[in-house]
Amino acid sequence: MTALDELNRYRSRGADRDVLDALLDEVKVGVLSTVVDGLPWSVPMLFARVGDRILLHGSTGAGALRQVATGAPATFTVFALDGLVVAETLFDHSANYRSAVIRGCLEMVEADEADVLRSLSDKLIPGRASEVPTITGKETAATLTLSMAIGDDNWLCKARSGGPAEGSGDTWTGVIPVSLQFGDPVTATGDEPPASVRSLRR
Amino acid sequence: MTALDELNRYRSRGADRDVLDALLDEVKVGVLSTVVDGLPWSVPMLFARVGDRILLHGSTGAGALRQVATGAPATFTVFALDGLVVAETLFDHSANYRSAVIRGCLEMVEADEADVLRSLSDKLIPGRASEVPTITGKETAATLTLSMAIGDDNWLCKARSGGPAEGSGDTWTGVIPVSLQFGDPVTATGDEPPASVRSLRR
Repeated sequence: MTALDELNRYRSRGADRDVLDALLDEVKVGVLSTVVDGLPWSVPMLFARVGDRILLHGSTGAGALRQVATGAPATFTVFALDGLVVAETLFDHSANYRSAVIRGCLEMVEADEADVLRSLSDKLIPGRASEVPTITGKETAATLTLSMAIGDDNWLCKARSGGPAEGSGDTWTGVIPVSLQFGDPVTATGDEPPASVRSLRR
Repeated sequence: MTALDELNRYRSRGADRDVLDALLDEVKVGVLSTVVDGLPWSVPMLFARVGDRILLHGSTGAGALRQVATGAPATFTVFALDGLVVAETLFDHSANYRSAVIRGCLEMVEADEADVLRSLSDKLIPGRASEVPTITGKETAATLTLSMAIGDDNWLCKARSGGPAEGSGDTWTGVIPVSLQFGDPVTATGDEPPASVRSLRR
């Protein structure tokens, strides 16, 4: 079985940035890790990429997040599992995936919290932000937004795709595709889901 | 919009371990983070839970993994995104999810590498390990297995489920379910997928 971290490395150069951006725009949750008192500290977070920045959004009440908010070195890790690769031998089994690790320092986002919320919302449910009222000042005051820059050389993007290693051909080998699916919307109030929600169900 | 890290905390005590185990047995990839030279270092990895241990599997050629292999403090973070929660205001939008962070020290697994590979395989594709030949000594020599103990108080499991915060009721609100799906197997060699592969497609 082949580890997720060893195959088909695409380092941060040239056109590979397109691969990174596509992954960041598709995946909805990543893992933020930093160092607190010499020990690793991690939390999964919703995020959005806006240009050359990753935006992370939390509550001002989230103590640990605040603690690491300014200037802390951090990693932000995302992945998409795309398939399970079935081979003749257990050793040759593998996974198709795309992953990225971005290293950088967390920065507080002071201005335009409302814009950040809209960016995050538009990434999760495209079009939703324009269907709801403008965010109030009280609401933006209760949020904490962090960002991390995507530079020229502070990230690593890796992927594996394709079929299993060649074997004897005597037994079945292949790939089981894996993907994140949106189900039928479950109504809490109202009659018909808005356009944003309907278009998310492809 | 509500952050993934602030809702419905289930701390590690009593029956909550069941929630953790169910999550660990369902999710196939987690993020391993540790500290190297004072900086955070992260990598996504396939894993399996066996009893009170998380087993992580890599290649002996993966240098960074070897560097952190023995005794390094680490976190292992897993999450499942279960739904997008659509509310009346952008601020009240949220996500349904389950997540866990386990803190501990990485240990090398010396014995029974073959058993570890079987455990990992059986987690990813239940039943597959018994359909393939026994792993060879050469193959196990090329693998590096790390483990982290699940103790009484070294993990945090959190979740949010249910509908959106109550609003005026004038507009549609609800939840868009999200889940990881297995597609139809894609054949590389052979005719008919084995029972393990067929049963994975529910």
